[in-house]
Amino acid sequence: MSEQLPNLIEEVIQQTTPQSVINDASTVIAQSDEKELALLLESLPIEERIALWETIADKRKLDVLIEMRSDPREILIESTDATLWDTLFVDIEAEDLLELADSLPQKLLAQAYAAMDKVQKSYFIQANEYTEGEIGHWASHAFLVLPQNAKVRDGLRLIRRDIPRHCDLIFLTNRSGQFSEAVPIALLHTQPEHVPLVDIALDDISVINDKESCLIAAKQVQLSGYGALPIVDENQQLLGRLDVTTAAELSFEEYERQLMATAGMDEDEDLFAPVKKSAQNRAVWLGINLLTAFLASAFIGMFEATLQQVVALAVLMPVVASMGGIAGSQTLTLIIRGLALNQVSPANVGALLSKELKVGGLNGIIWALVIGVVAVFWFGDPMLGVVIGLAILLNIIAAATAGIFVPVILDKLKIDPALSGSVILTTVTDIVGFVAFLGLGTLFLL
Amino acid sequence: MSEQLPNLIEEVIQQTTPQSVINDASTVIAQSDEKELALLLESLPIEERIALWETIADKRKLDVLIEMRSDPREILIESTDATLWDTLFVDIEAEDLLELADSLPQKLLAQAYAAMDKVQKSYFIQANEYTEGEIGHWASHAFLVLPQNAKVRDGLRLIRRDIPRHCDLIFLTNRSGQFSEAVPIALLHTQPEHVPLVDIALDDISVINDKESCLIAAKQVQLSGYGALPIVDENQQLLGRLDVTTAAELSFEEYERQLMATAGMDEDEDLFAPVKKSAQNRAVWLGINLLTAFLASAFIGMFEATLQQVVALAVLMPVVASMGGIAGSQTLTLIIRGLALNQVSPANVGALLSKELKVGGLNGIIWALVIGVVAVFWFGDPMLGVVIGLAILLNIIAAATAGIFVPVILDKLKIDPALSGSVILTTVTDIVGFVAFLGLGTLFLL
Repeated sequence: MSEQLPNLIEEVIQQTTPQSVINDASTVIAQSDEKELALLLESLPIEERIALWETIADKRKLDVLIEMRSDPREILIESTDATLWDTLFVDIEAEDLLELADSLPQKLLAQAYAAMDKVQKSYFIQANEYTEGEIGHWASHAFLVLPQNAKVRDGLRLIRRDIPRHCDLIFLTNRSGQFSEAVPIALLHTQPEHVPLVDIALDDISVINDKESCLIAAKQVQLSGYGALPIVDENQQLLGRLDVTTAAELSFEEYERQLMATAGMDEDEDLFAPVKKSAQNRAVWLGINLLTAFLASAFIGMFEATLQQVVALAVLMPVVASMGGIAGSQTLTLIIRGLALNQVSPANVGALLSKELKVGGLNGIIWALVIGVVAVFWFGDPMLGVVIGLAILLNIIAAATAGIFVPVILDKLKIDPALSGSVILTTVTDIVGFVAFLGLGTLFLL
Repeated sequence: MSEQLPNLIEEVIQQTTPQSVINDASTVIAQSDEKELALLLESLPIEERIALWETIADKRKLDVLIEMRSDPREILIESTDATLWDTLFVDIEAEDLLELADSLPQKLLAQAYAAMDKVQKSYFIQANEYTEGEIGHWASHAFLVLPQNAKVRDGLRLIRRDIPRHCDLIFLTNRSGQFSEAVPIALLHTQPEHVPLVDIALDDISVINDKESCLIAAKQVQLSGYGALPIVDENQQLLGRLDVTTAAELSFEEYERQLMATAGMDEDEDLFAPVKKSAQNRAVWLGINLLTAFLASAFIGMFEATLQQVVALAVLMPVVASMGGIAGSQTLTLIIRGLALNQVSPANVGALLSKELKVGGLNGIIWALVIGVVAVFWFGDPMLGVVIGLAILLNIIAAATAGIFVPVILDKLKIDPALSGSVILTTVTDIVGFVAFLGLGTLFLL
């Protein structure tokens, strides 16, 4: 439906007034699945969103909420009649509640927890022993498991029952519940019934550590070629599994988080967040950037006398800062990708620095010449060309150095370089650029 | 191995000189799979990379190359002895050659093509009827298919043979080879042998259109809950399938492409590209940004006389530009995500603009006051506070407007907003910021 989404948005918006419900769109909505409805609801301004929400059948509401991002979801949770929750929470499972937990007020969370049976409650408690960043939090309990001494016939009997999605392996555990082997279901059909499963088990199945980060665990599953891998704790106890669909969702969330972080936002940011909330969310980032901008201004302020005499410096300042910022962001982006893939480490950071300095040096010289010549022709002052050329060269070299060290150091300090890397880098290149340019200007142009 | 990668990089770098081979690392390398070796090779400086490459067994070389990014791969292809290719290309399949095609010189491409059998050649030709952005290009031919009149017993016979990875469905085709239904393999075990497969087929399986974009097709598979979905052409002919692992790889490439595009780079950029090549890759982006920086400078230049008299304007210029740039990039990022998910369309762009203008207005007023007050205390001139406050407000509102329209228009023109959105946006906010600030300064401060 992704293709039809824009049309649906249009239909809903045209047909919705705060008082009315949706007419023509309603058949399409009945045919859409929960994920599609979640995307649609997120795309609507708040009044239309709530109007559409009220037309969705109660029995689908919980599944739709589960698929939504937290911020737009909270708006619907607030607008839902308090008496309805008893109905919505019937049959709620631990995995559902884990998805919703962030958006539910304390009271509703307690109500949902109380609605679960004993097994689901225990899953919920187990999951909450992990942070949301650890894969143990997202372990699914839908898997096929047999004791280690089971035979092919036991396997065949097991798969005659309901099989969970992406289930191409049967897990085997020993008497203490420790994971021991995995058997491809496909092999069951090629073997006599009395063969012990351990005899046809894989000898190289990789297991996921419960404390592993979600992104690495997701990659592990996606690269394995299997539909799901077992998650075990430090004692090899089988906790659950991670399947490829959940892995894809976790990676998608992580990429979205990274994309939004580059602009100082949250992956849960609502397209139609209430104005006050949205302004608040963004104000912090603007404030941090303001501090760095004032810092740069303070450095420029040191050269007020020079600027007064050589106004060309003021005109060209943005060029020096911009070239440093762009060159630095290229190195920074390359290193952030390398860090995410574990390809950048203390072992090769020296070699990387040396390469980036050479690249920066070469581009620095070329662009210093180009910009220097333009400046000479623009302002008719050869010395100004020399000054801006040197400043560009210095700043591009500083940018390459900062582009390596800023993300590496942030990563070491467990701070996400995608979030704060570019602010720090730009501050460095702004200050180096302004000080080099105005400083050299003071020396050579006065 | 992802966890061990940094240690391996260190081991290889320490033990490698251009003349020597690797000792201690060699056992670990023998145990690593092709994807891990590809990551390791990409993490090494060029000399070490080539030295390691030569120690890898010939029979693994092709599979390692397939897993690598184009740029680092090309370096290894160039360094590989010409006489070796005959051995490497034995048993090469169409899917392998499609992955490598970009990096192979014309002569090697022809040699590899000639090494394939008739069926693989036809797959290769079929794939090349599509661009790399269309999913038809990546259709896999490893699937289970039966005629529409087959029975459960035929299905059971089929799965006793080798089953491809992520195969939880048998596809049914009619006599003309058109896709008709899909049957879950799991159901075969629950039904009598004489039942026709069409009777237990899914009634809601979604098919992928051959011209669909890779990212949308990948999402379709990942959301389906199945291991793979059929790819069909406009006549419903079954062309192949897309499985979840390939889908994960395609989405990962797409996210990586987006991340790198924000810094004007390619997803194939080599961590250790040769200096000249790397400098060249980046020079274009620096050049484009230089033009926009000069454009901004030209606008500043219009106010030389004002700057000469009120040097405080020069000192505070970066603050006005920076606040506009940051506010704009927040709106831009939100819209880029919305466009990627099809959540932003002409139907809701008006509502989005109105919301972003309100958010921008609110933040504009708050920060205009803060910055105005700081400016008054810093330079002791109340009128300067008014001027910078107004300029900030105007620029943040311009930023919100540009943050909506720049990506929407680029998307309409089929230009990737992740690549060029932020350059254009910053140009707008720089120029609006400088002109508003210096223009108001000229009016009120002279």
